[in-house]
Amino acid sequence: MKKQLNIAIIGFGGMGEWHCHQMKASKIMNVVGVYDISEKRQKRAAELGLKVFESPVAVAVEEGLDAVLIATPNDLHLPYTEYFAARGKHIICEKPAALTSGYFEMMTDAAKAGGVLLIVHQNRRWDPDFLTVKQLKAEGTIGEIYDIESCVTGSHGIPGDWRKVKEKGGGMLMDWGIHLIDQMLQFDSSPVVDVDCDMSYIEGFEVDDGFTLRLRFQSGLRATLIVDTNCFINRPRWRMQGTDGTAVIENWAREGKIVRVKEREDKYLRGIDAGNGFTRTMADRSAVTVEELPLPEPMPEAFAFYKNVLAAVNGGELAVKPEEVSRALKVMGFATLGRLPCRI
Amino acid sequence: MKKQLNIAIIGFGGMGEWHCHQMKASKIMNVVGVYDISEKRQKRAAELGLKVFESPVAVAVEEGLDAVLIATPNDLHLPYTEYFAARGKHIICEKPAALTSGYFEMMTDAAKAGGVLLIVHQNRRWDPDFLTVKQLKAEGTIGEIYDIESCVTGSHGIPGDWRKVKEKGGGMLMDWGIHLIDQMLQFDSSPVVDVDCDMSYIEGFEVDDGFTLRLRFQSGLRATLIVDTNCFINRPRWRMQGTDGTAVIENWAREGKIVRVKEREDKYLRGIDAGNGFTRTMADRSAVTVEELPLPEPMPEAFAFYKNVLAAVNGGELAVKPEEVSRALKVMGFATLGRLPCRI
Repeated sequence: MKKQLNIAIIGFGGMGEWHCHQMKASKIMNVVGVYDISEKRQKRAAELGLKVFESPVAVAVEEGLDAVLIATPNDLHLPYTEYFAARGKHIICEKPAALTSGYFEMMTDAAKAGGVLLIVHQNRRWDPDFLTVKQLKAEGTIGEIYDIESCVTGSHGIPGDWRKVKEKGGGMLMDWGIHLIDQMLQFDSSPVVDVDCDMSYIEGFEVDDGFTLRLRFQSGLRATLIVDTNCFINRPRWRMQGTDGTAVIENWAREGKIVRVKEREDKYLRGIDAGNGFTRTMADRSAVTVEELPLPEPMPEAFAFYKNVLAAVNGGELAVKPEEVSRALKVMGFATLGRLPCRI
Repeated sequence: MKKQLNIAIIGFGGMGEWHCHQMKASKIMNVVGVYDISEKRQKRAAELGLKVFESPVAVAVEEGLDAVLIATPNDLHLPYTEYFAARGKHIICEKPAALTSGYFEMMTDAAKAGGVLLIVHQNRRWDPDFLTVKQLKAEGTIGEIYDIESCVTGSHGIPGDWRKVKEKGGGMLMDWGIHLIDQMLQFDSSPVVDVDCDMSYIEGFEVDDGFTLRLRFQSGLRATLIVDTNCFINRPRWRMQGTDGTAVIENWAREGKIVRVKEREDKYLRGIDAGNGFTRTMADRSAVTVEELPLPEPMPEAFAFYKNVLAAVNGGELAVKPEEVSRALKVMGFATLGRLPCRI
């Protein structure tokens, strides 16, 4: 029964360093050292007092190493997984795990052959806002949720250099899309029966700088996933329509509210002047017919992802299962095809 | 050169009465009387001091009558137009003018044969919020607008009785959809090359109680039109994405703002913790790189619609042209078909 895992970080860019600090804080992962091809990042690792490996081979032969974290550009997840899995190291891999579900199958084959775990860092399953969304569904606070919007918006464009390059797995569908898809597949387990996606190319690169992805589930749920990197007034992070009300979560800090119907018929309803016309349909409800509720605030266990990695190494169940990762990658594949009926 | 038109109102429900008050205030239209099959509405008209006609024939033979306003359920626009056009009365017709563009063609034929004008009350072209949207486009305040969302939301369900019945032209696509479509066709004059629509049937009637309609224009503009009658936290009335910024108009009172980029690169950018992860892409901009502007507040001329009717009767140009109404009805027809390529 291991109590801590010795791990090396492959690729010490923004996410590699973020993991390094998180792992140290978690006390679950002992970061043994770092491998990165960039001199600048090697220097940064040395500054942080980390061992700097000279090559993947040096990592592979390191005594007592349990696992590697792969945080390289996306196109290198596959070769590094094959290399280290064959050398008996458990693999923790940044998202998206692979550029296609076909490549991911090669990764799961490699892990199986090496007798190691392949664990993808789909960490946003533990985001507090997403836990709130799941709790609202479970508790039926706004009735049955039939429409959900999940939006991540900003105005900095596509970050970094390799994320603008298609063959490296760049673009926002790869970067944020996979998180939003994974969350949605966790939210509704019924088959996805329809996928439709509009990509945007405002910045003029060969990869998408945002998208609107619409999923329809066999359950009837409609989901709209929006990522926009040229958006100067943010959209709400979540909007949920239920049979009995609406919930909006504005941001990661979970500002927002729930409005739920108390009396369906509004006998105090009065029409309003609206624009250059008149409407009763779209008039505000009288306050007595609805109630406003605060959002629940469930909190994830600290370091839940690393804890699960340790538990899985000790024989427990993986939280992020390869078959779930594969399904999310299949949805992503359909998204690039435009409009096709499907069943994933 | 007429200075005022004598008009009778056919159908004295909510919209008929609204027009009656507006017309009186405008001093452009002289409401001679009302025809309605309902005793309750006949009584209401009498209370307001209006003449109550006993039949369409009585209206048709009324001395000096220039025009009729048809504000009946939607399926009756066609027969009343045919009847009164053949008797030389100009027709002002509530929206949607007809259930299909085919029916509308019969109406324009009838008007032509009778030598009268057929004028559809697409009054929301003069809504202050829509004028603001058009001004933002014309002035290029947020650069080129490539994505626009037009939403009308409420939580009272489908209003009235006949609006729940398909053959009477019920449903929200007919009711509010035609306004939003008409506005969008005024906003972008290039051909519509793609129409896709998801109807919702939350209330369980035979007609839609809301929809999400996506239009793509040959210009490249993407438009999303949303009507929702089970929405307890309203969506913004308008959201516009431009190459240089974003504008949001929250409601008919034009609360909202514009945020425009001043310096594209943000050298003060810092990553943020977001949910259970980290992001630089979706971090807020530093304030010096953007500017916030108030929305412009153009105001329509008072009674612009009736003024235009009078001008057109006197030989001037119609603001709401039959060919424009026909085009909007064609888009509505495609919306009911689901996903088909088109060119309207």
